[in-house]
Amino acid sequence: MRAKCSVFIATSLDGYISRPDGSIDWLNEANASVPEGEDCGYGAFIRTVDVLVMGRNTFELALTFDAWPYESLQVVVLSSHGVAVPEGLAQTVSVSSESPAQLVARLAALGRKHLYVDGGKTIQSFLADDLVDEMTITLIPVLLGAGRPLFGPLQADKRLSLLASRAFEFGFVQNRYRVEAKPAEPRR
Amino acid sequence: MRAKCSVFIATSLDGYISRPDGSIDWLNEANASVPEGEDCGYGAFIRTVDVLVMGRNTFELALTFDAWPYESLQVVVLSSHGVAVPEGLAQTVSVSSESPAQLVARLAALGRKHLYVDGGKTIQSFLADDLVDEMTITLIPVLLGAGRPLFGPLQADKRLSLLASRAFEFGFVQNRYRVEAKPAEPRR
Repeated sequence: MRAKCSVFIATSLDGYISRPDGSIDWLNEANASVPEGEDCGYGAFIRTVDVLVMGRNTFELALTFDAWPYESLQVVVLSSHGVAVPEGLAQTVSVSSESPAQLVARLAALGRKHLYVDGGKTIQSFLADDLVDEMTITLIPVLLGAGRPLFGPLQADKRLSLLASRAFEFGFVQNRYRVEAKPAEPRR
Repeated sequence: MRAKCSVFIATSLDGYISRPDGSIDWLNEANASVPEGEDCGYGAFIRTVDVLVMGRNTFELALTFDAWPYESLQVVVLSSHGVAVPEGLAQTVSVSSESPAQLVARLAALGRKHLYVDGGKTIQSFLADDLVDEMTITLIPVLLGAGRPLFGPLQADKRLSLLASRAFEFGFVQNRYRVEAKPAEPRR
């Protein structure tokens, strides 16, 4: 069986996951208005994840945090170039230049059932290859005007089904979608 | 008093209001799944509107519809070039090359209290000029990959407050935001 691939991410109302330089100060500022103890479902989500897949940009952003946020979770950094992994993370973080499909197949063969796909470019390449099953997108009530977008070009429309929607009193709206399988090509 | 300016619009999940060529086939297709009689609040909204302000692209799209959709509502088409208004619409449709601020001031002086601002470029210029008070955005569960975006560049972040959020069983999510006034410049 193929592993399930999920996205769990926050965007500005205009669809950016970070500013043009990668910074998420606007998200940290918005999170400051979130009541203590409210994690918008992140804890429940991350406990179901077997492997976190991210790109180099997201990895390098996570390295700047005060502490490595993923504890013992297995992380694969997808990068066509080498990425330096700090020694303290060598037990959990590996680097791969596989294609999304190759990576998903390899991890599924290892018994991994649920992959968390993170980072703009990584999410876009998984989406383009029809590998994303579910997306949980938390809309932050701010317009940035520019930045790194969550979504990118596609070969064809992708239909989604809304599985859940939740508005928080501090103004975030979190929508969970199933990405519908591509309709079969008509037979000739 | 200044007239209130509202946006009421649908976008794809990736933030487009139409395809690159302006077509909204994807929106018409999504609307086909909406139960008879459900208008997602549009009727209640449009009844509060005194003047509809749109750009030339939106006007020319509306002209392609089977019937003019705005009945007796006053419409102003903002365009720096001339726009041909069909004779049958001359009673309700006028064309103006005013700036957004000039138009809002003129209409307010005429006693117009609520303007409906429509069309990507028009909305973007009203937002850039800090003239939008409320935005109702209906998220359609489809990714297009390309198109004409609702939002554009801004001089500075814009904070919004979530006023209402509503999920429909056919998968649309409608969020209503107040656009917060720009914080005052710090005094020197």
